[in-house]
Amino acid sequence: MKPKILISLLALTLSGAIMSEPLMIESQGSFAAGGTVITSAGQYNPRPDAVKNKMSNSFMDVFQASVKAGGQTLHGDHATVFYQIPVNAKKLPLVFLHGAGQSMRTWQTTPDGRAGFNEIFLRKGYPVYLIDQPRRGQSGRSTVDGTIAATPDDQFWFAQFRIGIWPKFFDGVAFPQDEASLNQFFRQMTPNTAAFDAGIVSDSLKALFERTGDGILITHSQGGIVGWM
Amino acid sequence: MKPKILISLLALTLSGAIMSEPLMIESQGSFAAGGTVITSAGQYNPRPDAVKNKMSNSFMDVFQASVKAGGQTLHGDHATVFYQIPVNAKKLPLVFLHGAGQSMRTWQTTPDGRAGFNEIFLRKGYPVYLIDQPRRGQSGRSTVDGTIAATPDDQFWFAQFRIGIWPKFFDGVAFPQDEASLNQFFRQMTPNTAAFDAGIVSDSLKALFERTGDGILITHSQGGIVGWM
Repeated sequence: MKPKILISLLALTLSGAIMSEPLMIESQGSFAAGGTVITSAGQYNPRPDAVKNKMSNSFMDVFQASVKAGGQTLHGDHATVFYQIPVNAKKLPLVFLHGAGQSMRTWQTTPDGRAGFNEIFLRKGYPVYLIDQPRRGQSGRSTVDGTIAATPDDQFWFAQFRIGIWPKFFDGVAFPQDEASLNQFFRQMTPNTAAFDAGIVSDSLKALFERTGDGILITHSQGGIVGWM
Repeated sequence: MKPKILISLLALTLSGAIMSEPLMIESQGSFAAGGTVITSAGQYNPRPDAVKNKMSNSFMDVFQASVKAGGQTLHGDHATVFYQIPVNAKKLPLVFLHGAGQSMRTWQTTPDGRAGFNEIFLRKGYPVYLIDQPRRGQSGRSTVDGTIAATPDDQFWFAQFRIGIWPKFFDGVAFPQDEASLNQFFRQMTPNTAAFDAGIVSDSLKALFERTGDGILITHSQGGIVGWM
């Protein structure tokens, strides 16, 4: 048994050493994928009558008069993509889609400050694409109205994500049990800005894969619905 | 005049060469800064009566019964921070705060796909911290309710950000004039998930600077209000 244990420890030590080396990034950036456009009735007027012939106009007056005149577009229901491509990258990129109530932060730093899947797979040489699906996080701009209730539900999610039954952690759960980590975990949540629509999310990922070519989609929880589409 | 021109061209060439070198990142990650907690009345019950003694329960049934029972928390009104620290970093970090209708994407890739302020300053050796302010983007979780109207207003923002008077671009404007770039620009916008509150944004930045120590805050447009607080 001894050699086996030695090898495991060696592997751990090596992986620790690798995590402390600088990340070598060939390129990184963000863009929107997919989405649709709606247009309001009317004719766009940059200086509507309501704000004409005044010495100055308030921001909100001009905004409201301009919206009332209409003839404007709204670009919405796209995905937001943040990507990093390491040096000497493997061919197929990994595309990570979060679950309900989450954003791309799921795949970034863990609640206790360790590297997330993002960094782990970058260090293994994969191009990594992180998604905020349409109507979530940085993709908040939707083509339909939305309402967001400030509903306290942290304890529900604590159970839903299989951490434990509040305030008890399950025996042997890997989740860090200090207050700061829990605080960070709850603050990774961000609501739908309009109704969740798996078809719209799927359409945005199609647009992404048209840009990247073949790739590997990794989904979490609610994201799995989209993965099967 | 000739030597001067030569020097400028040389500088451009060098800067082009630098942009194509790999980015050397010492560490990167995301976390939440600041924020508050609200708690609902009642007593948390992981298995409310309404969903007991059934063979299976739908996600929404359990969620709603659990919320109704109350006694749960909501962590909201924090800022989301994405940071990258280059190798051999300068001492003072740059903290970038976006303007109205925007998120940290303002500082990432430009609409026509070039490196944003984020990458430019990383390559100059600055630690860079990008913010989604409370109630915007990945910081969508608020302690108060919000409503989001799908209001077409792209043309207003085209004027507001001094690009031109739709559909005309101002003479000599640096903004790229192709359709794909405009599409990307409009899709960088993301709405407030609850009312904008400069004091709450300022509080979250205070928490961030307590973590980083001294730093340089760079603000855009609406972000300037917060910068003066």
